[in-house]
Amino acid sequence: MTKIGILGGGQLGMMMAEEGLRLGIEVAILGDSAVAPASRFYGYRYRGPLIPQTVRQFVESIDIITFEFENIPLNVLDLLENEFADKCCPNITALRIFQDRLLEKEFLERCGIPVAPYKQIVEVAEIKEFILGSANKEGANKEGAIIKTRRSGYDGKGQIRVFAKDLTSRCSKLTDQCSSLLQNSPCIIEEIVSFDEEVSVIAACGIDNLPVQYPLIKNFHQEGILRESYPDSSLKEYEAQAKEVIAKIATSLNYIGVLTVEFFVTPSGLIANEVAPRVHNSGHWTIEGAHTSQFSQAIRATAGLPLGSSEIIGYPWMGNIIGSVPDKSKILSIPKAALHLYGKEPRAARKLGHITAVSSTLDEQRLIRNKVLSILKDCAI
Amino acid sequence: MTKIGILGGGQLGMMMAEEGLRLGIEVAILGDSAVAPASRFYGYRYRGPLIPQTVRQFVESIDIITFEFENIPLNVLDLLENEFADKCCPNITALRIFQDRLLEKEFLERCGIPVAPYKQIVEVAEIKEFILGSANKEGANKEGAIIKTRRSGYDGKGQIRVFAKDLTSRCSKLTDQCSSLLQNSPCIIEEIVSFDEEVSVIAACGIDNLPVQYPLIKNFHQEGILRESYPDSSLKEYEAQAKEVIAKIATSLNYIGVLTVEFFVTPSGLIANEVAPRVHNSGHWTIEGAHTSQFSQAIRATAGLPLGSSEIIGYPWMGNIIGSVPDKSKILSIPKAALHLYGKEPRAARKLGHITAVSSTLDEQRLIRNKVLSILKDCAI
Repeated sequence: MTKIGILGGGQLGMMMAEEGLRLGIEVAILGDSAVAPASRFYGYRYRGPLIPQTVRQFVESIDIITFEFENIPLNVLDLLENEFADKCCPNITALRIFQDRLLEKEFLERCGIPVAPYKQIVEVAEIKEFILGSANKEGANKEGAIIKTRRSGYDGKGQIRVFAKDLTSRCSKLTDQCSSLLQNSPCIIEEIVSFDEEVSVIAACGIDNLPVQYPLIKNFHQEGILRESYPDSSLKEYEAQAKEVIAKIATSLNYIGVLTVEFFVTPSGLIANEVAPRVHNSGHWTIEGAHTSQFSQAIRATAGLPLGSSEIIGYPWMGNIIGSVPDKSKILSIPKAALHLYGKEPRAARKLGHITAVSSTLDEQRLIRNKVLSILKDCAI
Repeated sequence: MTKIGILGGGQLGMMMAEEGLRLGIEVAILGDSAVAPASRFYGYRYRGPLIPQTVRQFVESIDIITFEFENIPLNVLDLLENEFADKCCPNITALRIFQDRLLEKEFLERCGIPVAPYKQIVEVAEIKEFILGSANKEGANKEGAIIKTRRSGYDGKGQIRVFAKDLTSRCSKLTDQCSSLLQNSPCIIEEIVSFDEEVSVIAACGIDNLPVQYPLIKNFHQEGILRESYPDSSLKEYEAQAKEVIAKIATSLNYIGVLTVEFFVTPSGLIANEVAPRVHNSGHWTIEGAHTSQFSQAIRATAGLPLGSSEIIGYPWMGNIIGSVPDKSKILSIPKAALHLYGKEPRAARKLGHITAVSSTLDEQRLIRNKVLSILKDCAI
């Protein structure tokens, strides 16, 4: 019997492990914290930081390895590629590309997938140059640009927004921030895209299957952190384009597993923002709101089992619990609310859980959404 | 924070624990086997057989205890009642009654709930007397009766069917079997009911709530073991009667938790067959097929949290995996099939898992059901 190893002990790893358990597949998780969400899973192993030695020992004990996050240290990726390439699902090439914003954008461009104009930068002077260059282009967003570290950023971390006006005034604090970011990490700068919506598409790619794609998901972010996600049928017109993108990525990389692409919806169509070679926060509603959850698909793809139906059920909606946990009784007094807590200590801007509701009508969805958001707002820190 | 203890480490305990985990409630399980399904849960504890000493130690470490099975040894029930009555949910009176078929039937009769004619018996001679007595009554089933141990029987174990014709011929083997059963365990005999359907109703009773009831479930048994369950809207006419039964039981016993009543549907209405003071195999489809699963309701009721919606989603169907596990790829190639395996070793007549599918139409339900049953038939042992 195939034994799956998951690298990363966060909530994504935990929810994948739960599906493995149900499917009768042995699962082990290697995490880097003794109190990670997945430490509540019987197959959790904590051996200190994720360094090549501990990862080697872990991978030797399992048949196939998959990943709950893409920001894997380069020396661990080297080890996996050199010694365990056959055990990696998805493959290391995909992880290398999607953990580096520069490689990611270059890859997407090679696939002919539209991305926001970007440039690798090393000096503060290049920021002004990029913004001025952008501002002179026809139809460009005059607002400015965003500097992002090539690696390791998530939930808006490692990002600085630079507005055109900041460059005309003497804004030394911002300049210092940019300078410090550039000194510490290789960065890219990209134009801020004027978008109507933020959406994502999640697909599962199996060994012998064409990608199985969930309907397009509408996302709302606040302070760089995802707050709400739900499949929105008004986005149907973009599904064909999203499908094409997923197919191109999957084919180019011989990709097996769950794949998420975040897009901006602009008047000229979808612009790819980020790719995650894994299950994604914007797909948590699939546990209750789809015939097969993204976590089940990830385990099935990794184990070489047939993928399930990605058809949605009713009108699912998901809201994230950020920073502090609301009164459980209040949430559960909404009869259709399903609560998922990750067992993490409260901390500002931290994802502690999520709430899903599958409604029978759009009106009901709106009502439940308003109720949940009002409870979450009251407990926000 | 409330810490819940579950007595019993089978699949029911495991699925309750999973829901506790999601709701952010600490859960521990005490089981009597090192390889029980729930031994895959991080909070599982195995301390040998369930004897008063080990149970005492366990209950001292938790805030409230609930149960995944009712056949709890009497000395353990005595301990719980004498020392931990405030921690027991449901209460020990309910467990005492529903673990003993005689007390159960007497209780149901006292509540005015129809049951099949029955009698406590101690001697073989009483069997013939009972059957002849029954056969002489108007409208009686001439076929015979069933002898059941008062305690500890499940899945048809500890039961002997005695037909009228057996009593006219010299059938010494059957007489020996009956005699042996009667010598070893207190028994009852009851008339075999001529029924049209076997159904069950599952309800959750919260502290401040009226019982929250799932729609009536149609069940199919084979060789005394449940094979299929699904909510059937054609049973709607019996829902009011079932609701009345649940309300009577809950009120009489001040019952908190999930409660299951199995009924026979007869031309004169519902006849109660068995009560289970717990989640039930016939409600496993609620994980995917209802807004709140029976396992979530059990944890919520035990923790004093609000109960969730018991509304069903689409057309759910569940089939049990008995004796041996089918080829996973075959099952999962049915796109809407959700597979749940319990991690148990295959053995004839053993429940190893279940398969749920939530269909969009009755036709689709029929198709999926036929596919699953044909795969299960091929692997039956």
